Amino acid sequence: MMHLILADSELEIIPKKIIKHPAVRNSKSKILDASLHHAAMKGLKQWQRRGRPDIVHVFLLIANESILNKEGMLRTYVHTRNDEVIYIKPETRIIKNYNRFKGLMEQLFEHGKVPPENEALMEMRKENLEKLLDKLEGKRILFSMDGERRKLEDIMEEDVICIIGGFPSGDFLSPVHKMVDEVVSIYHEMLPAWIVGIEAIVAYENKFVN
Amino acid sequence: MMHLILADSELEIIPKKIIKHPAVRNSKSKILDASLHHAAMKGLKQWQRRGRPDIVHVFLLIANESILNKEGMLRTYVHTRNDEVIYIKPETRIIKNYNRFKGLMEQLFEHGKVPPENEALMEMRKENLEKLLDKLEGKRILFSMDGERRKLEDIMEEDVICIIGGFPSGDFLSPVHKMVDEVVSIYHEMLPAWIVGIEAIVAYENKFVN
Repeated sequence: MMHLILADSELEIIPKKIIKHPAVRNSKSKILDASLHHAAMKGLKQWQRRGRPDIVHVFLLIANESILNKEGMLRTYVHTRNDEVIYIKPETRIIKNYNRFKGLMEQLFEHGKVPPENEALMEMRKENLEKLLDKLEGKRILFSMDGERRKLEDIMEEDVICIIGGFPSGDFLSPVHKMVDEVVSIYHEMLPAWIVGIEAIVAYENKFVN
Repeated sequence: MMHLILADSELEIIPKKIIKHPAVRNSKSKILDASLHHAAMKGLKQWQRRGRPDIVHVFLLIANESILNKEGMLRTYVHTRNDEVIYIKPETRIIKNYNRFKGLMEQLFEHGKVPPENEALMEMRKENLEKLLDKLEGKRILFSMDGERRKLEDIMEEDVICIIGGFPSGDFLSPVHKMVDEVVSIYHEMLPAWIVGIEAIVAYENKFVN
């Protein structure tokens, strides 16, 4: 089984501090989104990296539709900057439309699960990365540019936990370097989270599927 | 070099026939989008598969940010249901926000290039798949569920053209089966276009990069 964690992802409700800003006041969605709320965000610390539900969306579109997931060998988790963790059932079909996806994320923050009435496909719990990792079994690999350059197929094990940053720039907020077995770099430039996810998933498929 | 073609993709301007429908009239974007215009689309033939700019968007996000593209070994093209072809320069950074991406597509239909004033990063030409293929060199591989099940690394060649359907269901509209060297299936279920793209790109990377 591969456990895939998008860590410290920049997914959050619009902070109260900027809720009355003109760039935010008429926002249809309560999810902070840098592409809409840019003007208001300068009042927030670390504003340059925040408000990136788009990264979460594309990451989940590649993970949950992957062959590895369809084969039942992938579990995906989204950990946020404020230490929430979204548990996603493998059978979840991630909604393709970005605006509706944000609507679902809003429901998660509000009700803790989606859909709220039936058996949940996604569930959000207040939890930090360390607690999440404690529950999972496997070699812990952190993807980071400061890691050692390795070929992915060489380091994949049948039970593996891959941790990828869900932020556009900067470093992990969580003390994740202390929690892992190996820190790995797969390229000499920053890559978007979903590209790192792709490379990890396909490397695992090549080694353990078929 | 790998040439990657998203073929018969469901990208188009809202057809005149439905432009006065209430579900369309107040639409901010001129790009047909099934998730917004669903109620109006039933008046169109083949409406179930049309209006999927989201597929194009995610496909380009995985292609243009891939390691293969950063290494200069990938060229990406989007061919549409109405025989337009978008040429995308490898250095193009695909805009992450879906709504803005649709805005760019609208500009492409309007001006033929983006950005309109400077040297274009994306260019749209009236062209069918056959004409596009005539310009490119390499083994032509079509990805389709009716193809032969093959391991991708076995069939990749250094010069290769990979053709992937840019529609959510059904079959190619273009007579593409006649134009290719090999028809290949990589899984026993339908996969989204971007997942097929991922598998092709990473197989090529594993064989020819490094």
